Amino acid sequence: MNVLETYAPITVFICSLIALAFSTYQFFAVKKKPEGTDTMKTIGGKIRKGAMAYLKRQYKTVGVFFAVMFIILLVLSFAGFLTPYVPFAFLTGGFFSGLSGFIGMKIATYANTRTANGAQQGLNKGLKIAFASGSVMGLTVVGLGLLDISVWFMLLKFVFKLNNVEDIMSAMLTFGMGASSMALFARVGGGIFTKAADVGADLVGKVEAGIPEDDPRNPACIADNVGDNVGDVAGMGADLYESYVGSIISCGALAAAAGLGFNGVLVPMLIAAIGILASIIGTFFVSTKENADQKALLGSLRRGTYASSIISAIGSAVLIFTLLPENSNVFWAVISGLLAGVLIGFFTEYYTSDSYKPTKKLSASSETGSATIIIDGIALGMKSTAIPVIIIGISVIVSYFTAGGANSFTSGLYGVGLSAVGMLSTLGITLATDAYGPVADNAGGIAEMSGLPEVVRERTDALDSLGNTTAATGKGFAIGSAALTALALIVSYTDKVKSLGKGLDLAITNPAVLIGLFVGAMLPFLFSAMTMQAVGRAAQKIVVEVRRQFREIKGLMEGKADADYETCIDICTKSSLKEMILPAALGILAPIIVGLVLGVNGVVGMLAGALVSGFVLAIMMANSGGSWDNAKKYIEAGNYGGKGSENHKAAVVGDTVGDPFKDTSGPSVNILIKLLSMVSIVFAAIVVQFGGLGLF
Amino acid sequence: MNVLETYAPITVFICSLIALAFSTYQFFAVKKKPEGTDTMKTIGGKIRKGAMAYLKRQYKTVGVFFAVMFIILLVLSFAGFLTPYVPFAFLTGGFFSGLSGFIGMKIATYANTRTANGAQQGLNKGLKIAFASGSVMGLTVVGLGLLDISVWFMLLKFVFKLNNVEDIMSAMLTFGMGASSMALFARVGGGIFTKAADVGADLVGKVEAGIPEDDPRNPACIADNVGDNVGDVAGMGADLYESYVGSIISCGALAAAAGLGFNGVLVPMLIAAIGILASIIGTFFVSTKENADQKALLGSLRRGTYASSIISAIGSAVLIFTLLPENSNVFWAVISGLLAGVLIGFFTEYYTSDSYKPTKKLSASSETGSATIIIDGIALGMKSTAIPVIIIGISVIVSYFTAGGANSFTSGLYGVGLSAVGMLSTLGITLATDAYGPVADNAGGIAEMSGLPEVVRERTDALDSLGNTTAATGKGFAIGSAALTALALIVSYTDKVKSLGKGLDLAITNPAVLIGLFVGAMLPFLFSAMTMQAVGRAAQKIVVEVRRQFREIKGLMEGKADADYETCIDICTKSSLKEMILPAALGILAPIIVGLVLGVNGVVGMLAGALVSGFVLAIMMANSGGSWDNAKKYIEAGNYGGKGSENHKAAVVGDTVGDPFKDTSGPSVNILIKLLSMVSIVFAAIVVQFGGLGLF
Repeated sequence: MNVLETYAPITVFICSLIALAFSTYQFFAVKKKPEGTDTMKTIGGKIRKGAMAYLKRQYKTVGVFFAVMFIILLVLSFAGFLTPYVPFAFLTGGFFSGLSGFIGMKIATYANTRTANGAQQGLNKGLKIAFASGSVMGLTVVGLGLLDISVWFMLLKFVFKLNNVEDIMSAMLTFGMGASSMALFARVGGGIFTKAADVGADLVGKVEAGIPEDDPRNPACIADNVGDNVGDVAGMGADLYESYVGSIISCGALAAAAGLGFNGVLVPMLIAAIGILASIIGTFFVSTKENADQKALLGSLRRGTYASSIISAIGSAVLIFTLLPENSNVFWAVISGLLAGVLIGFFTEYYTSDSYKPTKKLSASSETGSATIIIDGIALGMKSTAIPVIIIGISVIVSYFTAGGANSFTSGLYGVGLSAVGMLSTLGITLATDAYGPVADNAGGIAEMSGLPEVVRERTDALDSLGNTTAATGKGFAIGSAALTALALIVSYTDKVKSLGKGLDLAITNPAVLIGLFVGAMLPFLFSAMTMQAVGRAAQKIVVEVRRQFREIKGLMEGKADADYETCIDICTKSSLKEMILPAALGILAPIIVGLVLGVNGVVGMLAGALVSGFVLAIMMANSGGSWDNAKKYIEAGNYGGKGSENHKAAVVGDTVGDPFKDTSGPSVNILIKLLSMVSIVFAAIVVQFGGLGLF
Repeated sequence: MNVLETYAPITVFICSLIALAFSTYQFFAVKKKPEGTDTMKTIGGKIRKGAMAYLKRQYKTVGVFFAVMFIILLVLSFAGFLTPYVPFAFLTGGFFSGLSGFIGMKIATYANTRTANGAQQGLNKGLKIAFASGSVMGLTVVGLGLLDISVWFMLLKFVFKLNNVEDIMSAMLTFGMGASSMALFARVGGGIFTKAADVGADLVGKVEAGIPEDDPRNPACIADNVGDNVGDVAGMGADLYESYVGSIISCGALAAAAGLGFNGVLVPMLIAAIGILASIIGTFFVSTKENADQKALLGSLRRGTYASSIISAIGSAVLIFTLLPENSNVFWAVISGLLAGVLIGFFTEYYTSDSYKPTKKLSASSETGSATIIIDGIALGMKSTAIPVIIIGISVIVSYFTAGGANSFTSGLYGVGLSAVGMLSTLGITLATDAYGPVADNAGGIAEMSGLPEVVRERTDALDSLGNTTAATGKGFAIGSAALTALALIVSYTDKVKSLGKGLDLAITNPAVLIGLFVGAMLPFLFSAMTMQAVGRAAQKIVVEVRRQFREIKGLMEGKADADYETCIDICTKSSLKEMILPAALGILAPIIVGLVLGVNGVVGMLAGALVSGFVLAIMMANSGGSWDNAKKYIEAGNYGGKGSENHKAAVVGDTVGDPFKDTSGPSVNILIKLLSMVSIVFAAIVVQFGGLGLF
């Protein structure tokens, strides 16, 4: 055994501990800050309580699913279809994914009041607290991700003495399925909660009763703020944990298939480890002057991510030239991934930020009412899919060929896998800038509900608006990396099938592949329909409840009586937990059913179809939604008639339509794509044996 | 040479003449009917004049394109990349496609006043006239289609003495490209015209000024009626000509590739010929009692299509058992196509008609305003994609395996081609029921503008509402057949490439194929964005103009002065001609650019990606749009507050968003999918020689 094989996993393990230590330090640093007035404490407490209560019930529901799946996997492994590690790997993936969300949400619910309080003293104070809490989330996700990976790797290699690298990676792929399942539940459940509360609160509060957003008289306003935490924070944490881990292990699996041995498998892990250190250093570059404007704020966040990217690139170069000297060109694969992530992020911002033409033009279409702003918003989202597709295409070409794809197909694909790892290597800091958004949003809500001076609200608004931009960038990363990771997973699936002794005919003209492509292309649409309708149904219930409270609670509108916030939170919790089951079932059952009917070739077709149509649909939904949101904000800032004008009303309709687009369906589609692949891999042996109806 | 090879083409030719004779007879029968009052004549004349003026200018613009393409193709054929027939075949395809639209529109603009006048005497009278004019369109399309096919076939075989069936089909495929190009221009141009006028007229007339639809005071109302003719009639005619011809020639090409010789090639033509006779017989089943309700009306139309289907199925059985005795199982392929068409049509109706739950529920979501009706409508459209995908999947499986796919790949695909021909064999009558809709719609407008009694408007409304349902069914057919035809064309492309001596690696894991899939999946989105934004821009101009007239023409609102209708028509004409260029360019340039960059494998990936994502997107847009339209009508019928209520306003927003969905972007995507394939086939030789950057 060479020295590297021993020390590299330990190095990765240590880096994961550094990330967790840094995030623990930040966690307590944030918690030490003063929380503000008693009203702020009370409101903050209510939000925290509601969010935690939701998560507990979510984990209980998801726990049942995990228990059932665990038993199924156990049975399958006893029957010889799976290795004995699979059921346990599945559990850890799910556990850590959930834990990432939990910790991120914990800190976010501490940081929201503290950010509002900090903003009383100045913009920079607020930014620092909100960003610190974001970095807790970012570094928890990457820390737990690498911890899980390195511990499993060492366990399989040093304890269970698996010496074949392919066997190790095959076992590790299955904790990806656990992570994906958890992520899907968290994203869908949280996404439904947050948007049901948001839409419901707006429809009755803003539109019908004419009271402002975050007004304490609105019974759904606490639920709305709880939603930001369970959806935008906990959901996102679980989601990106899954993306991060998925990219690293799928790349490792490709290295194994390409015959690059342990070195090939360890490189993606080590690149991720370097990225952790780079991210930590990057966080120190984030701060701003007191009189900073929006642009300076964004500049300060950018400084952090750019510094991390550069450090990460240099570190990866050194690493690759040392460990893969004969194959050092794969360095360009990593760079192409990093660059693709940055570029997709930039174009997401271009399409969704009101600093650029598209969203400005979208605001202008409010002149002719809500129908035209909807049409133009959808068109904007559709149009915005072109550039990311081209970026991903170029990135695949560059990474494939620099990694030697012209001579060896598998080596080329390893390059594609590495570009996904490169894209996500600086996740520690990109996620920090992303996760800071909902905290700022919450801080604004708390400032409003606690009756803090107007200037505080203005500061939190500035922070929040910036958060929309960084959230858009974060979504770009999530979508881009999902595409590359899913690609790697599809190839891993074909390797798995081949290792089971089954031949493949993946020609696009093979009817099984073709029908699979059709079904796959349809799945993201069906899935989005399910999640959007779920939001609609849950929002409907909130509307009924809020109307009831306005009607029945005497003195509520005059501010003399308190609203019953708990009932709204309870409705959201119950609905979202109920509604998340069906979409998740679709993700898990579709690959099995398609496999049984169309066989393994059909599964590959389905995966490819879901990947390409899901990628395009997810970008469209994210960008339409983001642009509507900012078009509304742009009008609220005094353009086209400003708040209360007919234009504003039209923009509110756009924003409401965009809510489930960008915060429920869109981001869940990313996870769906990967979950489909993961499930296919885990159930490959069953499909190989029983699939295809004797026809395919 | 066997007897069949001589007589079969002549039989097909004669059947095409029968269709044209029947449609000519119907044409003059309709024209003989009385036109009604002088006002009706004047209004009808204005609509006809505007529509004809538009078509003339459209043909002029398109003529330039055809001239340029003709020269390019001529140069390429001199350079040896194409056979000398190609440039001329291209022209005839375009010419007949355009002619189909022209004749259909001619009769529609005669029939609209006559239908309104007939409706004065009763429902049945109105139905008869409108349906007769629809059958002119239907039989013109199929007649011209088979005429073009049979004449070219005889020309190539008997005059130019081509004896290799593959060479004949290869030359014939190229007039498909002409037809597709023309269809795209007609659908996109007409689609932009009609929706710009419709949206523009509604936004200012209905929403701002509060005057009813089709009110003569609205300066855009004539343009709106013109739009129905140039978009829904002429556009649809060109579109379905292309579908019809495309399915028959692509099936023929597959027969040639499968080594089934002339018999195999002649079978699809003969099935189509049988379908013509069946359609003519079917038209005699359409009539209704005077006191018929909506259900009876629909029943009467259904009787016609079902009778035709049954006759067509029996005829095809006899034909196949005689001509392909060793391969008679392909009969089931034809049946599966026929059945798939009927089923997709039924489910389209299920999702869009207000007789069923989905649209009723959509109407209910107007209770919480325009945002929720938009969200739910999009979700409805997305959900409705699942069943058609499954139907197409089953139909592919059945037709592939019954045609012997288990033993021979090419024979199986011939079965898939035959199922597309089966689906479209009764187009003569299904198109008649479809084309009757816009005539009824126009008749209603004329009744309103001419101040005919309320009861007449009620009758035309009943006819129109039925037209929405049959239009939805027609769209189902168009989409379903597009999927199967595009599939056949993709295979024809691979055959073409192989015949040029180039090997293919179509595995989905080949990076060129994968990137092609991504690009292909994105194209329908980009295309839809372009066409939707085009509608928005053109509608904007109409809004400005209508507002100007309301402001500047004294006495217009009091009915004392006439509106300036011509300017609105002129604006629509100019905008739509300008705006149709870019989307059409996308369809023609994308395959060439992708081919040059990614090579032939990339092209196949692109075609497959565009097919599956375009299929799903087209269904979603058509069904969302159809359902919004009918939800609005359902509310107008007195449900959920009826006309003028807040619910109605929300439903109007939904309907306005749905307009470009269902009448511009959605139906054009079908054509885009096939145009991409056609262009790929024609430019295959160039791509084989120069494509792939030396990498792929």
